[in-house]
Amino acid sequence: MTKKAWSGRFSEDMSKKAEKFTSSIDIDGRMYKEDIQGSIAWANALKKAKVIKTSEAAKIIKGLKAILAGIEKGSIKLKSELEDIHMNVESLLIAKVGDVGKKLHTGRSRNDQVVTDLRLYLKKELSAISGLISALQKTLIKLAEENIAVIMPGYTHMQQAQPVLLSHHLMAYFEMLYRDKSRLEDCLTRIDIMPLGSGALAGTAFPIDRAALARELGFSQPSKNSMDAVSDRDFVAEALSCLSLVMMHLSRFSSELILWASQEFNYVQIGDAYSTGSSLMPQKKNPDVAELIRGKTASVYGALLSILTLMKGMPLTYNRDFQEDKGPLFNAIDITRSSLSVFTEMLSGIRFNASEMRKQMRKNMASTTMANYLVKKGLPFREAHEVTGRIVAYCEKSGKDLDAVSLWELRRYSPRIEDDIYGVIVLEKSVETCDVIGGTAKNRVLAAISEAKKRA
Amino acid sequence: MTKKAWSGRFSEDMSKKAEKFTSSIDIDGRMYKEDIQGSIAWANALKKAKVIKTSEAAKIIKGLKAILAGIEKGSIKLKSELEDIHMNVESLLIAKVGDVGKKLHTGRSRNDQVVTDLRLYLKKELSAISGLISALQKTLIKLAEENIAVIMPGYTHMQQAQPVLLSHHLMAYFEMLYRDKSRLEDCLTRIDIMPLGSGALAGTAFPIDRAALARELGFSQPSKNSMDAVSDRDFVAEALSCLSLVMMHLSRFSSELILWASQEFNYVQIGDAYSTGSSLMPQKKNPDVAELIRGKTASVYGALLSILTLMKGMPLTYNRDFQEDKGPLFNAIDITRSSLSVFTEMLSGIRFNASEMRKQMRKNMASTTMANYLVKKGLPFREAHEVTGRIVAYCEKSGKDLDAVSLWELRRYSPRIEDDIYGVIVLEKSVETCDVIGGTAKNRVLAAISEAKKRA
Amino acid sequence: MTKKAWSGRFSEDMSKKAEKFTSSIDIDGRMYKEDIQGSIAWANALKKAKVIKTSEAAKIIKGLKAILAGIEKGSIKLKSELEDIHMNVESLLIAKVGDVGKKLHTGRSRNDQVVTDLRLYLKKELSAISGLISALQKTLIKLAEENIAVIMPGYTHMQQAQPVLLSHHLMAYFEMLYRDKSRLEDCLTRIDIMPLGSGALAGTAFPIDRAALARELGFSQPSKNSMDAVSDRDFVAEALSCLSLVMMHLSRFSSELILWASQEFNYVQIGDAYSTGSSLMPQKKNPDVAELIRGKTASVYGALLSILTLMKGMPLTYNRDFQEDKGPLFNAIDITRSSLSVFTEMLSGIRFNASEMRKQMRKNMASTTMANYLVKKGLPFREAHEVTGRIVAYCEKSGKDLDAVSLWELRRYSPRIEDDIYGVIVLEKSVETCDVIGGTAKNRVLAAISEAKKRA
Amino acid sequence: MTKKAWSGRFSEDMSKKAEKFTSSIDIDGRMYKEDIQGSIAWANALKKAKVIKTSEAAKIIKGLKAILAGIEKGSIKLKSELEDIHMNVESLLIAKVGDVGKKLHTGRSRNDQVVTDLRLYLKKELSAISGLISALQKTLIKLAEENIAVIMPGYTHMQQAQPVLLSHHLMAYFEMLYRDKSRLEDCLTRIDIMPLGSGALAGTAFPIDRAALARELGFSQPSKNSMDAVSDRDFVAEALSCLSLVMMHLSRFSSELILWASQEFNYVQIGDAYSTGSSLMPQKKNPDVAELIRGKTASVYGALLSILTLMKGMPLTYNRDFQEDKGPLFNAIDITRSSLSVFTEMLSGIRFNASEMRKQMRKNMASTTMANYLVKKGLPFREAHEVTGRIVAYCEKSGKDLDAVSLWELRRYSPRIEDDIYGVIVLEKSVETCDVIGGTAKNRVLAAISEAKKRA
Repeated sequence: MTKKAWSGRFSEDMSKKAEKFTSSIDIDGRMYKEDIQGSIAWANALKKAKVIKTSEAAKIIKGLKAILAGIEKGSIKLKSELEDIHMNVESLLIAKVGDVGKKLHTGRSRNDQVVTDLRLYLKKELSAISGLISALQKTLIKLAEENIAVIMPGYTHMQQAQPVLLSHHLMAYFEMLYRDKSRLEDCLTRIDIMPLGSGALAGTAFPIDRAALARELGFSQPSKNSMDAVSDRDFVAEALSCLSLVMMHLSRFSSELILWASQEFNYVQIGDAYSTGSSLMPQKKNPDVAELIRGKTASVYGALLSILTLMKGMPLTYNRDFQEDKGPLFNAIDITRSSLSVFTEMLSGIRFNASEMRKQMRKNMASTTMANYLVKKGLPFREAHEVTGRIVAYCEKSGKDLDAVSLWELRRYSPRIEDDIYGVIVLEKSVETCDVIGGTAKNRVLAAISEAKKRA
Repeated sequence: MTKKAWSGRFSEDMSKKAEKFTSSIDIDGRMYKEDIQGSIAWANALKKAKVIKTSEAAKIIKGLKAILAGIEKGSIKLKSELEDIHMNVESLLIAKVGDVGKKLHTGRSRNDQVVTDLRLYLKKELSAISGLISALQKTLIKLAEENIAVIMPGYTHMQQAQPVLLSHHLMAYFEMLYRDKSRLEDCLTRIDIMPLGSGALAGTAFPIDRAALARELGFSQPSKNSMDAVSDRDFVAEALSCLSLVMMHLSRFSSELILWASQEFNYVQIGDAYSTGSSLMPQKKNPDVAELIRGKTASVYGALLSILTLMKGMPLTYNRDFQEDKGPLFNAIDITRSSLSVFTEMLSGIRFNASEMRKQMRKNMASTTMANYLVKKGLPFREAHEVTGRIVAYCEKSGKDLDAVSLWELRRYSPRIEDDIYGVIVLEKSVETCDVIGGTAKNRVLAAISEAKKRA
Repeated sequence: MTKKAWSGRFSEDMSKKAEKFTSSIDIDGRMYKEDIQGSIAWANALKKAKVIKTSEAAKIIKGLKAILAGIEKGSIKLKSELEDIHMNVESLLIAKVGDVGKKLHTGRSRNDQVVTDLRLYLKKELSAISGLISALQKTLIKLAEENIAVIMPGYTHMQQAQPVLLSHHLMAYFEMLYRDKSRLEDCLTRIDIMPLGSGALAGTAFPIDRAALARELGFSQPSKNSMDAVSDRDFVAEALSCLSLVMMHLSRFSSELILWASQEFNYVQIGDAYSTGSSLMPQKKNPDVAELIRGKTASVYGALLSILTLMKGMPLTYNRDFQEDKGPLFNAIDITRSSLSVFTEMLSGIRFNASEMRKQMRKNMASTTMANYLVKKGLPFREAHEVTGRIVAYCEKSGKDLDAVSLWELRRYSPRIEDDIYGVIVLEKSVETCDVIGGTAKNRVLAAISEAKKRA
Repeated sequence: MTKKAWSGRFSEDMSKKAEKFTSSIDIDGRMYKEDIQGSIAWANALKKAKVIKTSEAAKIIKGLKAILAGIEKGSIKLKSELEDIHMNVESLLIAKVGDVGKKLHTGRSRNDQVVTDLRLYLKKELSAISGLISALQKTLIKLAEENIAVIMPGYTHMQQAQPVLLSHHLMAYFEMLYRDKSRLEDCLTRIDIMPLGSGALAGTAFPIDRAALARELGFSQPSKNSMDAVSDRDFVAEALSCLSLVMMHLSRFSSELILWASQEFNYVQIGDAYSTGSSLMPQKKNPDVAELIRGKTASVYGALLSILTLMKGMPLTYNRDFQEDKGPLFNAIDITRSSLSVFTEMLSGIRFNASEMRKQMRKNMASTTMANYLVKKGLPFREAHEVTGRIVAYCEKSGKDLDAVSLWELRRYSPRIEDDIYGVIVLEKSVETCDVIGGTAKNRVLAAISEAKKRA
């Protein structure tokens, strides 16, 4: 049982069980770098405010740097009975530099300290995630360029709908990821606020220059209300909301890869390096990485939900409940980072079976083009749709492909149909008709790719 | 059983049960204005693209405007068997203007139509919510100004911690709401993209000028990938995430009001107009509005969760599952709007019991100030904390207030304590020590209020 | 503005906005039958306790029955300004029978009343849902019997794994639904507790025989602690947890039907009556009912989450937050009922394409059987798996089916392989090898069907 | 890179990143005991089925027991590159006993193995949790007995409502926990099904006596459908639903303790051993354990939600997504176990401030009794409520307590009031009026306690 830093008014030691239950060092220990970074800046601020002497600040900072080095090279181990990362560092500091270390905590509280650490940490992690998204986007652009000639069935309701370029399909994910990055950027702006100097809740009683302190720590500005600053976890919820959407996108893509890797679709070959086999069935090759990403998405949602639930109805200011923000957050960060990283690697090595895609395309996907043909021949769209629908029904019943119905038969449905119809209802041509911004015509997709390169 | 617009290829009518199950008009009917607005713009676009004649466009637009007027004055009722708002409007149009109405759907799909409606609708609703937040912020500023002289206990862990200004406490909520508005603004930027012209998934086959169409509908730009455009519901999830945080803030404030309205706290008097009584207990006056806001927060969280779960693992492009996005979203919008509105009204009429707040303040809240006093007398903070903690423990044991302990007794704990201590450990003075940006000293709070006025 | 029943101590009327915000009649109005049933029983109990006279009880009960009839035939409309169903009924009663109606609320509170209504209502609804599950189970049994001869690929990781009987696959859903019913039954046991007579929180001050009252209302027993009774919503959360699992099962089945209805799988034909078309693409036939069920599942999850979040950290006893339990619950009940009902109807009319299933089966699904063959020839399983894996790899590389590899080639991988191998690696035979309880061998599936009939 | 057991058909090794991403040993390693227990039973079953020889079974079992011992005493470390606990154990076995170890996996798959492990593990853990609940219930009974004389304000809407016995309040939690145990029991019945022998999905091809195997492993019966058995995670969701309710109850109790420990309520003294101090404010004593329990509840909800989301729309049978079931589950189990344990310890040492409770009781809580008095004097309840309400309003306005209003004044509100009223509106007497089953009258509470002892 180590003596707690706050034990002055307590007559009884903490129960072993409670000590373990309240300790957070296993979780918040990973912010040791940010905690020390914050403490160094604080020591400097105390010095500037003439609360401690220059020589004291120097000693403290030297000690903190030594602790950082010690943790990094593994010679220093954090202790569970010291509650959290803040108390660990303070205690190590006092052990190293003596009584002067007891001055470091002057005018601050763990309440403003922990949320400063967390913001510093999140700035770093979200930037890293943004970088991983960029790498995935670049992979998509590369694949889209390489496969620009590949046509595949486009789906709605998982039913073949209209032919599209595989590149167009791939670039849809580029757009999702673009939004993800833009959301992360917005979130980072709101994270970029420094709470340090808010004390426990009321502000600090020492003349700290908070604007300068913010600059030293790389924040754009200090927080504007101390009570809000220590009790705000909005940014954790917002970050988790961003990560949930990133994972949602990966889960959608993964879900398609799993589908496409099935024997029935057979559109892709996922590399051996990203598949596993069965312990029982020798022939199996399973798209495990994609499945796990889809599965892990659920845990990131769970984390978002946990934070929101955690904060509901919480009175001002700090409540110990808030300690439970970090477990779900860190878990979500780890999942998102590793998912993005392994997904990009897997995607780079994927092979698309262009010939299978072509083989699977049903001829009746040209029926929209047929309806448009009738529109151009003067039929109102809704009637053109009806007529074509009846022709398709006839195909289904008679087992014929759309382009195998004779002109004579077609004209029973509409006398406007002429011989030129057969040159129109060709799937390759159908793709080219969608020649608008955002459409699947090849020149539009190429333009989109080239514009994406600028945005990536 | 009404004939479906897509019934050409179907040989069998829809089951009554399935018709009812798949119908969404009860939900999406509320977007009738946006749907008609989109159709008018589409008719214009078809005209400009020379797909329909000027006279046809004029007829269609006149018809659509008449339908809008009819719905608004209640003479037109939407029908469940017509599936959704789009089919209702189209069917009404054909009934009104005849065959030319059958041309309106040329080159578009319900897939791009519904998401255009939804984006138009959300732009309107989120702006309205932003306006309601501003109104609440103004109320807060007013209350903060009026109550600038009121001191109350500040809490951490629901324990009295340090005295603060009531205005400082109120302004903490101003900051939360400020972030809410900023998040909504960012979300609106991502909503402000026009999907129309994306067709079912591949783009439209008619030469529509999508950039012009976007301008006509008040969007900043057309979407860049048709497959993404029709299958993207990120903006719904993001909007719900923003609303969840708004409600989380209201739930926190509500929770405090409920607490403060208890007999034990007795810090506020909520107006009769926002309270209800008990059917059994004649003396009861319950803070129902605040409780309901806290309760309804859970439903907004549920809505967010529903959308995320809905979208997980969905393959491209449109899936009918997406229809289930609107129920939760609309419910969350209704809850947030009414909660903001009624909360602001209730808050305007609240009375704060300044004298009760003062009475409840425990003297030992000055102990941080006492520790800081010792720091200024040369004791390292951690020792000052320890010494003060022991003095507090003595107070608890002996039942004395902190300021009632004699100097002689105090000096047993630290000889550095002198007679000037009694002028320091006064709660009113304690407030003034927090004289940094964001601190609770009166001049800082006044500065914050004045700055908030500019930001509001 | 109607005068509130509890307005004695209030000097100000409720704000219109607050009145609308706090009113729940739009939601709880659907429990009118249970509310009146509870009131009749309460009148009887008051009579037995000699709190009211026999003639008074008779008048009250007659009045209540008339109100019930009026609501049912639509001649009575519930009013929003009367807050909730309880106040509506009481007010209607007083209007109908005069001052004696003012005696009905003696000794009870809306707190015990609403939770009694809710338990009565849930008992009815969950039983109905259990009945719908039984109907679906019977449909499954019928389909399993009809299709007993159909072999299909069994999947793990959405990869063809081993051949199974379609009936075996269908009966897997029977088991899930069986658990659902068993969970609902357990939940009903915990719902079957009568809170009436718990008053607002402390019990009732009149000598009500609560055991007799429970019997009259069809409950197995009265609640044992009045404070728990009025603040307990566990049963709502438990019911929603049960419904979430029901919907999860339907979502899984729906997901398979959507997959199987794709052009690439083509395993099922969903009836026209349960599909819809596209407004743009004439050839489309979409499995909308299945998609919507999958989508609506998310809303039921959202409801569960809402209740749990609602209740977290709520102090005893009743809090107005609890009013928000009914919206999510009723929504989830409606979704589950309609989903079960329409799914069963859809499933009854489904056609399975046995020949397509057979055609799609990959020969290498027999490789587990081959490995087992080697085990029987004396090879340890792990080596048999390795050998077969190498043979499969050879097949993949050379483009050969497993049964097309010559004996000479096979024996290069293991000399234990003999000519009898070709009689073993036949998919139809592979199915029959799984001849254990719960296995897919035909006699085992038939036994399971026959046992299921008894359990259904 | 260790050779995978399923690597026969693979030509390329797994990517390091993918290997780490797919490895689950850090999570499922905690089921080593159950995994080995299952393997021992399987070896016996293979022996009985004459698939392996008696001597082979003996060697395997001896090896497995040695591995178990090795893991328990720490001499054996599990390896991440071996994917999961199953492959770790198999690989250790082969290393220890040689080629015969390669026979163990005959006829089974990791798919049936992992779910057998998980069911065994959950049976153990849920029973332990049930035991912890019992211990908490016993603590409650003890406290209820000791404090039987203590009266406190009962609350609705956090407003003082009617006086109740503290014991009655405490016993409300006994009832919640009673339901928790009953739910766990029901859940355990559904967990008590053995999947082993279901193979990968189709059953096993070796003549295993599954009923005997179930008995050996302590399961009540074997599963009835192999495809369901390997793809069923209902029991995980159900378990998490049970744990969510347990935590919800603890969060409610915690929330009350936090409230009661506030300076304003001051109803309880939480032991120093379960509180922490502030790093800044020397006087603070925070109810951290209670706050953390409330906070951790959110993570258990998140886990439930994760599993439900995970399973939504999953096709049969096993999907790798399912691997993500264990992280959330194990986390929830750990939280629930430690929360129950530390909460019970904390509660045992709590001191209730009976005198503060008495002091805080507002006299107007007797107004329900006053209304009932008027009912007994012949006034219909609704009028009695109205009259009393007006009297209370008068008290509020004039600042008088209810029992300080003179008879002369009272009779202005109702001439039925007589001198005996003052003997009635005494809070202590008010408690005694609630003399029904489940009411707060002392004899009823004593009866409830004595009945609870039997049920505990």
